[in-house]
Amino acid sequence: MIPFFDFMQNQPLTIAGRTFQSRLMLGTGKFASGDLMRDAIVASGTEIVTVALRRADLSGKGDPFANILDYIPKDILLLPNTSGAMNAEEAVRLARLAVAAGLPNWVKLEIHPDPRYLLPDPIETLKAAEVLVKEGFIVLPYINADPVLARRLQDVGTATVMPLGSPIGSHQGITTRKQIEIIITQATVPVVVDAGIGAPSHAAEAFEMGADAVLVNTAIAIASDPARMGIAFKMAVEAGRAAYEMGLAESSTEATATSPLTTFLYQS
Amino acid sequence: MIPFFDFMQNQPLTIAGRTFQSRLMLGTGKFASGDLMRDAIVASGTEIVTVALRRADLSGKGDPFANILDYIPKDILLLPNTSGAMNAEEAVRLARLAVAAGLPNWVKLEIHPDPRYLLPDPIETLKAAEVLVKEGFIVLPYINADPVLARRLQDVGTATVMPLGSPIGSHQGITTRKQIEIIITQATVPVVVDAGIGAPSHAAEAFEMGADAVLVNTAIAIASDPARMGIAFKMAVEAGRAAYEMGLAESSTEATATSPLTTFLYQS
Amino acid sequence: MIPFFDFMQNQPLTIAGRTFQSRLMLGTGKFASGDLMRDAIVASGTEIVTVALRRADLSGKGDPFANILDYIPKDILLLPNTSGAMNAEEAVRLARLAVAAGLPNWVKLEIHPDPRYLLPDPIETLKAAEVLVKEGFIVLPYINADPVLARRLQDVGTATVMPLGSPIGSHQGITTRKQIEIIITQATVPVVVDAGIGAPSHAAEAFEMGADAVLVNTAIAIASDPARMGIAFKMAVEAGRAAYEMGLAESSTEATATSPLTTFLYQS
Amino acid sequence: MIPFFDFMQNQPLTIAGRTFQSRLMLGTGKFASGDLMRDAIVASGTEIVTVALRRADLSGKGDPFANILDYIPKDILLLPNTSGAMNAEEAVRLARLAVAAGLPNWVKLEIHPDPRYLLPDPIETLKAAEVLVKEGFIVLPYINADPVLARRLQDVGTATVMPLGSPIGSHQGITTRKQIEIIITQATVPVVVDAGIGAPSHAAEAFEMGADAVLVNTAIAIASDPARMGIAFKMAVEAGRAAYEMGLAESSTEATATSPLTTFLYQS
Repeated sequence: MIPFFDFMQNQPLTIAGRTFQSRLMLGTGKFASGDLMRDAIVASGTEIVTVALRRADLSGKGDPFANILDYIPKDILLLPNTSGAMNAEEAVRLARLAVAAGLPNWVKLEIHPDPRYLLPDPIETLKAAEVLVKEGFIVLPYINADPVLARRLQDVGTATVMPLGSPIGSHQGITTRKQIEIIITQATVPVVVDAGIGAPSHAAEAFEMGADAVLVNTAIAIASDPARMGIAFKMAVEAGRAAYEMGLAESSTEATATSPLTTFLYQS
Repeated sequence: MIPFFDFMQNQPLTIAGRTFQSRLMLGTGKFASGDLMRDAIVASGTEIVTVALRRADLSGKGDPFANILDYIPKDILLLPNTSGAMNAEEAVRLARLAVAAGLPNWVKLEIHPDPRYLLPDPIETLKAAEVLVKEGFIVLPYINADPVLARRLQDVGTATVMPLGSPIGSHQGITTRKQIEIIITQATVPVVVDAGIGAPSHAAEAFEMGADAVLVNTAIAIASDPARMGIAFKMAVEAGRAAYEMGLAESSTEATATSPLTTFLYQS
Repeated sequence: MIPFFDFMQNQPLTIAGRTFQSRLMLGTGKFASGDLMRDAIVASGTEIVTVALRRADLSGKGDPFANILDYIPKDILLLPNTSGAMNAEEAVRLARLAVAAGLPNWVKLEIHPDPRYLLPDPIETLKAAEVLVKEGFIVLPYINADPVLARRLQDVGTATVMPLGSPIGSHQGITTRKQIEIIITQATVPVVVDAGIGAPSHAAEAFEMGADAVLVNTAIAIASDPARMGIAFKMAVEAGRAAYEMGLAESSTEATATSPLTTFLYQS
Repeated sequence: MIPFFDFMQNQPLTIAGRTFQSRLMLGTGKFASGDLMRDAIVASGTEIVTVALRRADLSGKGDPFANILDYIPKDILLLPNTSGAMNAEEAVRLARLAVAAGLPNWVKLEIHPDPRYLLPDPIETLKAAEVLVKEGFIVLPYINADPVLARRLQDVGTATVMPLGSPIGSHQGITTRKQIEIIITQATVPVVVDAGIGAPSHAAEAFEMGADAVLVNTAIAIASDPARMGIAFKMAVEAGRAAYEMGLAESSTEATATSPLTTFLYQS
């Protein structure tokens, strides 16, 4: 379905030993219907989809995501998230319930006590990460763009770090650019820019900076045509990543002539 | 070759009555070889390629771009530019010579007296545009991001306006964003962002703002793999344009929850 | 009245052979009353105040600015401006009338045909400048942040160039930073940043970049306390200028320890 | 000495019940000599000066800052900082030693394990703050611009929060603007912008955003004339604060005429 992909030649993404062709993760909130969500997932080419455990049936009486799985293709990794947890204890409990109910042991760790900005709590996130990593979870923590915290988390053994570009759903893009650049410089695990990615240009920019992946939700979910927006983000992700792999020229304050001064044609 | 394109559903671009599927224009300076240039042109999907008249044989004794045409597919519009002209008189003379030598009457009007920043001269550009439009040329003027000048040029009858994002070859992206937004608001002809587009994210951003096309040269020409970079820019252009056509959400200073609060799944 | 000034040791500003201690110019529009305006002028320490010729009585029957002069201290240079002129002809006519009516031959040249953004017209501005300079006027032209135009104007003999930071009254600050940096690099006359300066930090930034003066109007005129805001801008202007004269450190992407590593105290 | 101050009418700053006329705090690292430092302190009008405990003699055998006190006027609050501490334990130990050695119980809490960027550790900072507040210290913690952490610290009882504008000594200004705006919105204690303030415009901007104070070190200490730079920062601080107290107009994307359309003079 995406024949141009090989042509892009982008390197795959590896998280905790598992390899993905796509570097675009999708959130599943806010879609107007399940059909629109499925179409966007397919169109975007994503291979990792995050779903809130709060929306799952963790009673153990049935498939936790039965209501959602109808809309998510089989080969996609379902990444449960602890969104809604107010502290480490709640997040750990949610993650354990998920495994007990038969879900895989991957978890996107989200702890945000503040309902207004939905910003993550650094203390509780590190605390929960320590517990969950010890229990064998593959932990992908959502964090503020804090280089010291990012380093502590990777030292603890998380599979990625997921710094925010700007508050969830704000569409402001990467307002934390300088901090994320430091996180990338120090990273020993994939850096996933999460939250604030409101336009394809924001996604491309994240990759050009050296991010390994991005997570997008609202911008696709509330688009007038989520599938088409899913493709748009896919394109932007691949474009930004390809540019990064090739290496972009540094910006300069002066111009450099493109034509007609020295060119292969002129010189011949 | 680009089967995903229809899926993107982007509207075509029309300049002076001629319709183009691609909104990416390419410059031809600085490529290391003709083969690399041709590969980049094909890969990028561009349909408009600009070439400096200074590089053409305007003697009338042969095809002016004989040396270049080997590397440019037949169905692509060759847009001669007056790069190197220091004033209106030189630019007009170059354009007339081009037509006399058999080239089409489209001209990218570039007048930059200053070799350091290669910034365009507003006075000479308007003067030349007035003459050339009267003589029947299809004029695409390269200008500073000056909304009043842009308006005067479109009033004179130019086919587009081409404001710069930042100095040529500086790769700084769109540092003139506020001015270009005003130009777009006032435009009655296509707005082409020219110069400074150094990364795919810059190209996507131009379209998300509402630009109709972009012109890229150095970023593709000097890439380690110009064809692959050509694809990357193509993707970014289509992504940004699709997002614009669908409409992007305004950015806000507060977060809006994506999950798990209200979702179609949770509510069911 | 401003005893700290000497302590700042800032260099004076010279325009067309006349020297000023203050680098802050004030516009006189939008003040709620003449008393408030006078208080702001005095408090700001300004020595150049611009007044629209449209507000003057140019009939020759009396002092053109009789109604305004009551509110402007005697030692301040009254700089008439051509605001409201739509083209070169109107601007030149206004300037000539002013001199005929007994005003000095300094003129702030403002030509903005567009009532929505009030952006200056580059073509008409250059045309009027050429005429007025020849006629012996001291011309201070308000322009878009266009380095080529700025250069042409100084070559014609204008006393300054006055590029805009952002549209008049928009309070957006210096959105044309990259262009103004080039203008400053090339300047042989004082560069005055005009329009868009909406906060003291904007004014300080202009000087840190190397601007020679700023013109502020709305931000002071509509403040809840114009005199106090006038002082605030005065402080910011002197602060930014002093920093520029001393030289500021380049920004870097890494930290450099301030304490306790190497210090004069520790080493002793 | 600063007679213009009353004219500025700025509100004083209160931290932990103590009132300060100046909102500018100074660091004492990197000055070339004690005399230059003292001159800068006096000229800047600062009333809070921070000194690294590592530079103090905490043996109890003499005045801990004997070597420094010669250069700091008596009425200035000496704020010891824990710079150099790698974790909570080291920071707490330093603070206790300081009190045991006779210093006041105010402490600027700085814990940065990373020598390259000197960024603060959120986990260790909160841990140390909890201990020190319980022991009766007045705690001013230096933190990343993390709104959740800032909130937790003020809930614990710290006297301020001190988010960084950008890494220490980087002179990049306030690159964390969006995050600091949220911190200010939520703050119940004074917000002090610390680190990265490399120019007077940066300081003014912090206040215009609503910050209560700034801490500056390198930009003044390494200036060619530290006393003069101290005055420049003082001016910028007062200017930005005054503008904030009066209220600045929102920026807009359109222009608003300043003259000659409607003015008090024209209407009369």
